Amino acid sequence: MSTIKSDLGWSTRERIVVRGKDLPGEILGTLSLGDMAFFELTGNVPNEKQSRLFNAMAVTLVEHGVTPSAIAARMTYLGAPEAMQAAVAAGLCGLGSVFVGSMEGAAKILSSGKTAQEIVAENKRIPGLGHNLHKPVDPRAVRLFAIGRETGFYGKHCELMEALGREKKLPVNATGAIGALACELGLDWRAVRGIGVMARAVGLVGHLLEESRQPMAEAIWHQVEAQATQHIDKK
Amino acid sequence: MSTIKSDLGWSTRERIVVRGKDLPGEILGTLSLGDMAFFELTGNVPNEKQSRLFNAMAVTLVEHGVTPSAIAARMTYLGAPEAMQAAVAAGLCGLGSVFVGSMEGAAKILSSGKTAQEIVAENKRIPGLGHNLHKPVDPRAVRLFAIGRETGFYGKHCELMEALGREKKLPVNATGAIGALACELGLDWRAVRGIGVMARAVGLVGHLLEESRQPMAEAIWHQVEAQATQHIDKK
Amino acid sequence: MSTIKSDLGWSTRERIVVRGKDLPGEILGTLSLGDMAFFELTGNVPNEKQSRLFNAMAVTLVEHGVTPSAIAARMTYLGAPEAMQAAVAAGLCGLGSVFVGSMEGAAKILSSGKTAQEIVAENKRIPGLGHNLHKPVDPRAVRLFAIGRETGFYGKHCELMEALGREKKLPVNATGAIGALACELGLDWRAVRGIGVMARAVGLVGHLLEESRQPMAEAIWHQVEAQATQHIDKK
Amino acid sequence: MSTIKSDLGWSTRERIVVRGKDLPGEILGTLSLGDMAFFELTGNVPNEKQSRLFNAMAVTLVEHGVTPSAIAARMTYLGAPEAMQAAVAAGLCGLGSVFVGSMEGAAKILSSGKTAQEIVAENKRIPGLGHNLHKPVDPRAVRLFAIGRETGFYGKHCELMEALGREKKLPVNATGAIGALACELGLDWRAVRGIGVMARAVGLVGHLLEESRQPMAEAIWHQVEAQATQHIDKK
Repeated sequence: MSTIKSDLGWSTRERIVVRGKDLPGEILGTLSLGDMAFFELTGNVPNEKQSRLFNAMAVTLVEHGVTPSAIAARMTYLGAPEAMQAAVAAGLCGLGSVFVGSMEGAAKILSSGKTAQEIVAENKRIPGLGHNLHKPVDPRAVRLFAIGRETGFYGKHCELMEALGREKKLPVNATGAIGALACELGLDWRAVRGIGVMARAVGLVGHLLEESRQPMAEAIWHQVEAQATQHIDKK
Repeated sequence: MSTIKSDLGWSTRERIVVRGKDLPGEILGTLSLGDMAFFELTGNVPNEKQSRLFNAMAVTLVEHGVTPSAIAARMTYLGAPEAMQAAVAAGLCGLGSVFVGSMEGAAKILSSGKTAQEIVAENKRIPGLGHNLHKPVDPRAVRLFAIGRETGFYGKHCELMEALGREKKLPVNATGAIGALACELGLDWRAVRGIGVMARAVGLVGHLLEESRQPMAEAIWHQVEAQATQHIDKK
Repeated sequence: MSTIKSDLGWSTRERIVVRGKDLPGEILGTLSLGDMAFFELTGNVPNEKQSRLFNAMAVTLVEHGVTPSAIAARMTYLGAPEAMQAAVAAGLCGLGSVFVGSMEGAAKILSSGKTAQEIVAENKRIPGLGHNLHKPVDPRAVRLFAIGRETGFYGKHCELMEALGREKKLPVNATGAIGALACELGLDWRAVRGIGVMARAVGLVGHLLEESRQPMAEAIWHQVEAQATQHIDKK
Repeated sequence: MSTIKSDLGWSTRERIVVRGKDLPGEILGTLSLGDMAFFELTGNVPNEKQSRLFNAMAVTLVEHGVTPSAIAARMTYLGAPEAMQAAVAAGLCGLGSVFVGSMEGAAKILSSGKTAQEIVAENKRIPGLGHNLHKPVDPRAVRLFAIGRETGFYGKHCELMEALGREKKLPVNATGAIGALACELGLDWRAVRGIGVMARAVGLVGHLLEESRQPMAEAIWHQVEAQATQHIDKK
């Protein structure tokens, strides 16, 4: 039976404390949003190198243009502009197995202690490899591994991810690189999808602000509806 | 009629560009997550002072212990641990008029061009004032205004917010301070709720990671269910 | 301070009771889904006429083709097919002020005790009137009012709604008719939006089943992305 | 490549057609909400026996007291009472693998063409068996199978489900019975989780209406927060 217990934060009239640090006195003005995320996930304030790497990983997933999640968020905003939090939520709901979830899958496989050969033998599809658009390389993965090297975190998990790519003759994509680097940083694989979720929340707010000024949702709706029913004889 | 047009980002096989900057080459390793959020919302990379202030504003709302949104996210994770993005989404859905929405309300009122007297006359309840716990002052607001002064952004919107607090004899709370500082930074009031939404997405990932290791949702469920039905004669 | 107390249902090892009725023994096989919804909202099993009218109201909103909420649900399913509940949730998030919310607004105005003249004087836009497509009449509203007459529920709230339409020279739309008929049935205006939400949940499941067999989300994505960025010189 | 095509419904100025039937003329006042759901999922209007069984299956999952999904919805409503659709959405997000998802799993296994022995050999845990509360039998499953017999739909999938229960010495629970009966009705296993999702949408609206009149969310919040942090020395 679980017990009701949390160590993330507490408040009294005078104080707000997050993971043991006084929020106004020790965190605000000191930690950036990315460093706060690292602190929230690990309990440790990142050092400069950890901060540089972790922020790069998170920033990678903020914005990738008009993606399915951005479209879902914009369609939601069209119906409920007074509830933009719900539009962000709608956009996040699709960050599952097909897109962002592959980060989690990659981290899980890489932290399993298995060799590239074992992994290839056991998995028909390896998460974090291949991309429908970015071929023959995903430039985000290249850059992330470079930052991994610059900060001294490129290690065995990254090597394993790249070995898997060579075995399968597929490029490591951004989610594979992030999964591997998350392992190097010692992050729990269960937190890895969360990095993508928080990053996309940032990007979705950007899309909704653009939607509020330069809307596209209604045009998408009418265009899609017309196409979807053009095969029907409407009489 | 809206047209389908976005200026946030685009990709080709080789390139991923966000608001005119090459993501791998100019953004990754350069912008932190908070600075990326500012860039996404405004199109400008923040200078050092803007960065310090904006990051402090966002960090304020990441974590406040076991809040209603954290409970909603944890209850959701209990039923669908394979879809943690949906649990974050569930937690975000409640960031409406009662909690985070007051940031937006404060920013809207402060940017209306009205005086404190006019605002007090027209509004029975002024968003961004008062807190059910943090009395007589909200230490986050105090600290945020101090960072506003340190970075040179404390200005007329902050003064107006504090004047409203004096008029109503209520402390400016964290959302009021953030609303005022967002105006000072020139952010669109429609983006202001979004700062809270992205911040809470970070915090909710932290709660779900803790829930995966040290669960409380099932205990909450059984306790609440027992209490809710104890007045019923179950036979 | 609120107390933790619910009268909706309870269970023991042997029994499951909903609003005082034994679920297996008195409800399953006896109440239809629509009647169960009425029972859940009011505590009363509907008589035959109430059932006919309430079911017609709910059925009205189940399906209206490829709407914004259906598109949001399908885009979400594309990324997370393993979590179809999250895709339904994403689709529901947009049932706000612009679409389904007008039912609630109509019911609230109609139950305010004011005259048509007072309502017209006080409201620039009256919820439940006008439709961007269905002109000069919304055939759903016509049919719903007819069922209202057949079941003996067409009364002063329906008359008021139609009077408002005449005053504003706009047709009563489906949400206006449902709002008025909900008042006639004695439903709380706070439950009225909920009728639309439950109805659309049914329809969204239908869309997701079709999406799983005959997908359109990926085609929408690529088409929208191409259009949205065609004004950009991508080099 | 997918194409943009839907056969669920279309509209013109004068007409609204759902799966080939005129909504105002042929559906409203004729189909109940449950029958409309069957029609939406299968394209066929259910006959009397199909209707009785399908409605019983859907009704089973509407209400089970203060469940995790009801708590998530209520916590969300506390923060955003103006967006009740988002509170329903939040409640639905948790209908994943642990609770309602087992219906889908049961239907998938039962429609796989395998024998009870094969299924037991291949699966450590069989979805649709066992319940943490309802022991030694789940009275909903008993009643649903009885309705299956009464309507002539109790067949080989139900027998297989009950055989699996005997093999594992666990009672068939409500989700197992619904999964089996869905197979008997010829429903696609991908639609089966959807029956639970639509049913819970109905129930969640009921919870939110009760929450609006007799709130418990704030009390849950304060109680949980106090318990969760009582081990901390707050000074």
